[in-house]
Amino acid sequence: MRRLGIHSFVWTNGQTQDGLEMALEKSSEHGYRMIEFAYLRPELFDLDRLAKKAQDLDVEIVVTMGLPADADVSSEDKSAVEKGTALLANAVKAVRDIGGVRLGGILFSMHGKYDTMPTRDGWMNSAGAIAATADVAKDCGVQIVLEVVNRFESNLLNTTAQGLKFIEDTGRDDVFLHLDTFHMNIEEADPAGAIRMACDRVAYFHFNENYRGYLGTGTINFPPIFDALVDINYTSDIVFESFSSKIVDESLSRVCGIWRDTWDDNNPLAAHARTFIEQKWAEAVRRREVNAQS
Amino acid sequence: MRRLGIHSFVWTNGQTQDGLEMALEKSSEHGYRMIEFAYLRPELFDLDRLAKKAQDLDVEIVVTMGLPADADVSSEDKSAVEKGTALLANAVKAVRDIGGVRLGGILFSMHGKYDTMPTRDGWMNSAGAIAATADVAKDCGVQIVLEVVNRFESNLLNTTAQGLKFIEDTGRDDVFLHLDTFHMNIEEADPAGAIRMACDRVAYFHFNENYRGYLGTGTINFPPIFDALVDINYTSDIVFESFSSKIVDESLSRVCGIWRDTWDDNNPLAAHARTFIEQKWAEAVRRREVNAQS
Amino acid sequence: MRRLGIHSFVWTNGQTQDGLEMALEKSSEHGYRMIEFAYLRPELFDLDRLAKKAQDLDVEIVVTMGLPADADVSSEDKSAVEKGTALLANAVKAVRDIGGVRLGGILFSMHGKYDTMPTRDGWMNSAGAIAATADVAKDCGVQIVLEVVNRFESNLLNTTAQGLKFIEDTGRDDVFLHLDTFHMNIEEADPAGAIRMACDRVAYFHFNENYRGYLGTGTINFPPIFDALVDINYTSDIVFESFSSKIVDESLSRVCGIWRDTWDDNNPLAAHARTFIEQKWAEAVRRREVNAQS
Amino acid sequence: MRRLGIHSFVWTNGQTQDGLEMALEKSSEHGYRMIEFAYLRPELFDLDRLAKKAQDLDVEIVVTMGLPADADVSSEDKSAVEKGTALLANAVKAVRDIGGVRLGGILFSMHGKYDTMPTRDGWMNSAGAIAATADVAKDCGVQIVLEVVNRFESNLLNTTAQGLKFIEDTGRDDVFLHLDTFHMNIEEADPAGAIRMACDRVAYFHFNENYRGYLGTGTINFPPIFDALVDINYTSDIVFESFSSKIVDESLSRVCGIWRDTWDDNNPLAAHARTFIEQKWAEAVRRREVNAQS
Repeated sequence: MRRLGIHSFVWTNGQTQDGLEMALEKSSEHGYRMIEFAYLRPELFDLDRLAKKAQDLDVEIVVTMGLPADADVSSEDKSAVEKGTALLANAVKAVRDIGGVRLGGILFSMHGKYDTMPTRDGWMNSAGAIAATADVAKDCGVQIVLEVVNRFESNLLNTTAQGLKFIEDTGRDDVFLHLDTFHMNIEEADPAGAIRMACDRVAYFHFNENYRGYLGTGTINFPPIFDALVDINYTSDIVFESFSSKIVDESLSRVCGIWRDTWDDNNPLAAHARTFIEQKWAEAVRRREVNAQS
Repeated sequence: MRRLGIHSFVWTNGQTQDGLEMALEKSSEHGYRMIEFAYLRPELFDLDRLAKKAQDLDVEIVVTMGLPADADVSSEDKSAVEKGTALLANAVKAVRDIGGVRLGGILFSMHGKYDTMPTRDGWMNSAGAIAATADVAKDCGVQIVLEVVNRFESNLLNTTAQGLKFIEDTGRDDVFLHLDTFHMNIEEADPAGAIRMACDRVAYFHFNENYRGYLGTGTINFPPIFDALVDINYTSDIVFESFSSKIVDESLSRVCGIWRDTWDDNNPLAAHARTFIEQKWAEAVRRREVNAQS
Repeated sequence: MRRLGIHSFVWTNGQTQDGLEMALEKSSEHGYRMIEFAYLRPELFDLDRLAKKAQDLDVEIVVTMGLPADADVSSEDKSAVEKGTALLANAVKAVRDIGGVRLGGILFSMHGKYDTMPTRDGWMNSAGAIAATADVAKDCGVQIVLEVVNRFESNLLNTTAQGLKFIEDTGRDDVFLHLDTFHMNIEEADPAGAIRMACDRVAYFHFNENYRGYLGTGTINFPPIFDALVDINYTSDIVFESFSSKIVDESLSRVCGIWRDTWDDNNPLAAHARTFIEQKWAEAVRRREVNAQS
Repeated sequence: MRRLGIHSFVWTNGQTQDGLEMALEKSSEHGYRMIEFAYLRPELFDLDRLAKKAQDLDVEIVVTMGLPADADVSSEDKSAVEKGTALLANAVKAVRDIGGVRLGGILFSMHGKYDTMPTRDGWMNSAGAIAATADVAKDCGVQIVLEVVNRFESNLLNTTAQGLKFIEDTGRDDVFLHLDTFHMNIEEADPAGAIRMACDRVAYFHFNENYRGYLGTGTINFPPIFDALVDINYTSDIVFESFSSKIVDESLSRVCGIWRDTWDDNNPLAAHARTFIEQKWAEAVRRREVNAQS
């Protein structure tokens, strides 16, 4: 792995300049070298100051988001597709302006619970919109990653195989997958197998427990997932994500169904997650070495 | 376990008399002795004939459902609570009329994606409505079970611990939990531990793979779940549930986010599930015996 | 997989003509199409008659064995190495005479608990002896497979990586590995990873529970092992092995430490194992298909 | 858990005064507060000095051992039983003299590979010898724990159930079990279930990987084992054990079949194990809390 990061909602609901600055500082203090901001609204913040602070702390920024219903690029309604495409272009530019390295999330559809089946035309509209976004991103030096999410947060890309097919349909070689253990736990038959299948198409990875609490306290079988990342020689970034009703963001908490306190204190949570990921990664590396030793 | 059953949506979308009769026959042919009908609309069917057919085949009937938004008993709106309470009373009577043994599902709230936090008043309204429903059910000889579901299908009861607390708050000793491995996989830190904690409060159990396909092909670690059921001396019914976009029910498929074909042919699916559950149950029983043998 | 087989010690202690014939019949009755005879002593049996019976039942024969201390080809004592080499040549011929397809087991060392470290000279002596054996086997149309076993049953080849290195040192491309889940559970850091590493060098595979009882009742995590076999497109044979003090063979039970009754009745054991292996194999195949489906 | 300890063979082969003193210091440096000495030979050491050093460092001492063949208290030969009983009494006194808290290991039989079945008379002889040993231990203020080991290291007590029955047959309430994940992985159908069954009869616990290397790099499914220890409210000591051919003790390495380098450097090994055990313990405690939270 390249950099180990943490989602800003571990620290703040993300809607104030002070909140984001504090999140950068806390991440750095805890030894994380990347932070994920969600649903960044450039109009609310002094982006230059955030960019400067991030650089000073050597903490890189990733931004993630999902589309609203009226800007759903997987819609069959052209005006929604156009609106979404414009929204994505602006988001890419905001990432550039904040000095960020990557735009991720549910860029290919609405973020939320659909009540209709996806359509072939919607899929193609979305692929076109993502291709256009990738063009903008190329100029901005921003990487585009698509988050494969569970059935309740999108109807379009729920599995890695769908994500790979979708990227193929964009015709781009600079669009990548963003995988997340919470979503994989709901959708993949074999998360480790999915990672091996995705191989160098994965460029961003979220560690999340099944119920979004402390890593290692739930049902996800993490060792084979670390093994798969080691097997594909994963060299991009890993980010820890956890949500609790302790920190509520209107845009994200509700769409993600965060109704419970899964933790109260974010400091031990962040400390634990870093040790967890680093130790499990080292165990996976060693497991490969031991297995190969004759 | 007492009876092994199967969800009717393995066989039919459930909206015709012929469909339900065929489902009863297929279930019986495959050796299942219980069937679950979802969102039964008594006005559409000849209940007597279904009851007679079920009895002839020695296949018991369970009905499950969730509430619509305008009849949400966990609402703070009294008229919705009243409407939901009446709806539940009618549902209980329909179960009685069809000769069913049990009413289950999301009886305590809307079935669907909330976008607000649950409230204390809503919780108490719901507990009151369920207490009233249990009264009706007692007279009708119908058992009430509450399905603990994932965060995207209700905001009220997402964990076994919440379910137990809720039952306590109804003040009833004849209301039980309905647990389901699909939902537990998203919400419980330790599904087997939750089963042990629930103990004789569980009266209905769904086996479901993480992505709702063939059992044993996904991520759920089933052996400890069977162990826990054996440990608590579980003597009630077990039902196999699986959804595919192959069979679409408007009421259920969309709320459950069934966007993918997880199987095409329901016959091998049903045969496999029966062998899977019976074999894993026998393995758990034997594991206890071997462990205790000195 | 090609053929599914069963170890003869599920049926008999193996030391009479009648016992082996009964074992062939029972295996066939239970739907197994391969049988493993261990420590076959050709002088005790009518090999032609066994060969004829096996052919009539369409049950193929595999023979496995380990070397005695005084014929240990991994010894530094040349006379032991010579004695072992001759013994192996005779064993190969007996396999040919019984119409068997394969000779496996601990052919490369004593079968038993060593109390000294292996040596480099012993390793090379053993590799030479196996190369010589492979020459005889080629002429006899018998396949040679080397069983990687736990530290208490040999000191030479305890891991797949060691087995692969050893085969390389024999200079043969017709010597293969014989892997077994019981042994892998004690020695491999990652059994599934070891199978992937061995790839087309594995030509024989034993399914065994951790304590040698009923499959699925112990601690071995079988699904990833089936996944790995499916991933490497394993096309050779799979054999079920289980030992109980109910059936005692002087040569094998004691060296394997079979002190407990892990089962009393071999009929349900054999029926269970066949269903277990076939169902888990089918689940692994389906898991790959589901994971790849876009 | 009370104290977290480490086996002295992580540091030294144990046969010199300097080696044991260094081991005490290294254990303390790495934050361990208990050390296990194996096969302590009191005649070789200045016990007072070791006791003093341990006390100064606040590192408690446990001694473990197994019986030699000619002092096997599970023999049917009375002279061997007598010899073993005397040997155990002396060992208890040595533990007292070194200021140790506990004598554990294979006190009830030979430590090694048997080639005969255990006998009823041998079992009773052993129970008598352990009862006598417990009497001596009571006077000495030393706790007796019996290590349940795999089939290749004893033929008498291979499972927790056997251990519990054996303790019952000693007629003592001050003899306890010493469980070890390496051995359980070979013998128990359900290690976590075995711990729950043993409950307050377990007074000493070894964490060990399946192949005796770094914790978390092998096949043992540790979380349910920690869950079980938390469930039984385990309040005694936990010790980390790992063997590599890097550090060879003639008495132990050979009987345990340590033929491979599973690690070269013991410092990162010890640091990793402490973090592993403390983090997994905390995760298990939290898992219980989360599961119970309503």
